[in-house]
Amino acid sequence: MTKSIRVIQYGTGPIGSAVARLIADRPGLELVAAVDVDPKKAGQDVGDVIGLGRKLGFAVVPKLAQVGSKAEVVAHCTNSYIDQFKGQMIEILGAGYDLVSTSEELSFPTPPHQAAAAEIDAAAKKAGKSVLGTGVNPGFLMDALPLFLTGICQKVDRIAVTRTMNASKRRGPFQAKIGSGMTVEAFMAKMAEGRMGHVGLPESMNMVFDTLGKTLVKYESTVEPVVAERPIHTNFFDVQPGLVCGLKQVARGYDENGEFMTLTFKAFLESEIDHDLVEITGTPNLTVKLEGTNGDLATAAIAVNAIRRVFEAAPGLVTMRDLPIVTAWSTLR
Amino acid sequence: MTKSIRVIQYGTGPIGSAVARLIADRPGLELVAAVDVDPKKAGQDVGDVIGLGRKLGFAVVPKLAQVGSKAEVVAHCTNSYIDQFKGQMIEILGAGYDLVSTSEELSFPTPPHQAAAAEIDAAAKKAGKSVLGTGVNPGFLMDALPLFLTGICQKVDRIAVTRTMNASKRRGPFQAKIGSGMTVEAFMAKMAEGRMGHVGLPESMNMVFDTLGKTLVKYESTVEPVVAERPIHTNFFDVQPGLVCGLKQVARGYDENGEFMTLTFKAFLESEIDHDLVEITGTPNLTVKLEGTNGDLATAAIAVNAIRRVFEAAPGLVTMRDLPIVTAWSTLR
Repeated sequence: MTKSIRVIQYGTGPIGSAVARLIADRPGLELVAAVDVDPKKAGQDVGDVIGLGRKLGFAVVPKLAQVGSKAEVVAHCTNSYIDQFKGQMIEILGAGYDLVSTSEELSFPTPPHQAAAAEIDAAAKKAGKSVLGTGVNPGFLMDALPLFLTGICQKVDRIAVTRTMNASKRRGPFQAKIGSGMTVEAFMAKMAEGRMGHVGLPESMNMVFDTLGKTLVKYESTVEPVVAERPIHTNFFDVQPGLVCGLKQVARGYDENGEFMTLTFKAFLESEIDHDLVEITGTPNLTVKLEGTNGDLATAAIAVNAIRRVFEAAPGLVTMRDLPIVTAWSTLR
Repeated sequence: MTKSIRVIQYGTGPIGSAVARLIADRPGLELVAAVDVDPKKAGQDVGDVIGLGRKLGFAVVPKLAQVGSKAEVVAHCTNSYIDQFKGQMIEILGAGYDLVSTSEELSFPTPPHQAAAAEIDAAAKKAGKSVLGTGVNPGFLMDALPLFLTGICQKVDRIAVTRTMNASKRRGPFQAKIGSGMTVEAFMAKMAEGRMGHVGLPESMNMVFDTLGKTLVKYESTVEPVVAERPIHTNFFDVQPGLVCGLKQVARGYDENGEFMTLTFKAFLESEIDHDLVEITGTPNLTVKLEGTNGDLATAAIAVNAIRRVFEAAPGLVTMRDLPIVTAWSTLR
């Protein structure tokens, strides 16, 4: 690549800011603008807003139409739910940009979201642009990675992915998201509203089944609290025994022959285990253990790493299983 | 996929036969012919020649031109060296087939082979067909896999891949290939001829550097024997102390800043370690350990798994980093 790809950051929350910082520092990419609806951010220098540690010389604008600079790609980090981001994406694609998003529900269209995904796909094709949803999970650990590993298998009978995180090492908002400090009753009530737990397991499950040529005949998902057995202190929470210190979420996908894939997501304070495990039962049996995958670093990384692939991709909605291998490239300055 | 992809097996040695058996048993693929120059195989039922355990009702033919059945793809497993297989490939592509090969030197064109690779690429584009070289190594463990893992890294400073195999678990020809039972003098003499050691490390190194946008300014490779300290007995060899029981091969790739990638290939009898390790130093540091990767099973698997991707790929010479994720698909009957 002899010329930089110019990128607009759309959404400057914690993930969007991490993505934007990485774009600003990556040779081959150029951060040229940032869009955020927050009126407190409008007019401020983008470098300040994203926490870059230096000014960039241009201000956050509240609307895409107000971006004056030319650009090729938009990095979109606003929210998880397709009903809420669909309109944003159709506008971005219609304005002539390729699009990489960290929105979980875009990572693979599950049946409830296929109609909305088809609208986004149609908008992309009409504009001659491509659009990808990615992240570490969904987008890598529980879908693209196990799929990639099956490449050296003659036969796959079962796949289990277990992600176990020591939440004590993570940011305060993450510790809050997994229920730290809540009563079990409050956790269960929020769970009953469907507001508790990791977003993206159905997307991962559907990507794996679809790619392996399997029919997902049944999908089950459970979330349960992990309860503190002793007092736990973090920089953000003091959790008394009997209160929630995290969660365990399990999704099971079945084909005609029974349970084929199990996705387990465990995140709790003071977990002694802090790794990811992919277990494939088949010919051969494979066990792959990952240490060091960091959700905060990795989601920003994979979104930025995907930019050049999306820039080069054929028009339409693409997923992580469709692209050439997404990699880091070059090194940071 | 509603219709099967019809495949011709070209070369029915041990790897070719393993590939052909998997094609014959994989839903979505159909083995329709086999080509082998060995006059002893011509005229024999392909099922017998490849060790399928059942007749297929058609015989091995010595030349591609003698294949009567229609087919879309050729699975090519003859030899490692581009000078020797180039003519075969140009003939196959010219006859109108997509092509998947286990030939190591095709997996990524290194500088000495770029002219020959360009001829193959041109023949493929002229025919409107695609051609891929793949395998477990090169093609997966030391190139595509570490590249894939960098996808969740913001920054990559160093990559080390260490493959350690207990050769006692492998086939006799593999034990022979790594020098089992040779004297150190004989090993060194054969090594001096360039005939000792694993083929494919330069291909893996070049694929990684090229994909990450780095310049390979220096490449070093060493092979040394592993010497038995006690008598070793396998089903194929009796190795006395002081004789060779395997080898250790190290390749180092440097960019402008120094050593960036280290590939270590260790295979010896009675190794207590039998796993693969990918270590990425960067942001974050990642350690990934694979257990169960089996070279014999995996090379056949990945070649067959790649068939549908090559069938769908744009014309030309493609590599494992260019294709959508190669996966197992469906399950065996």
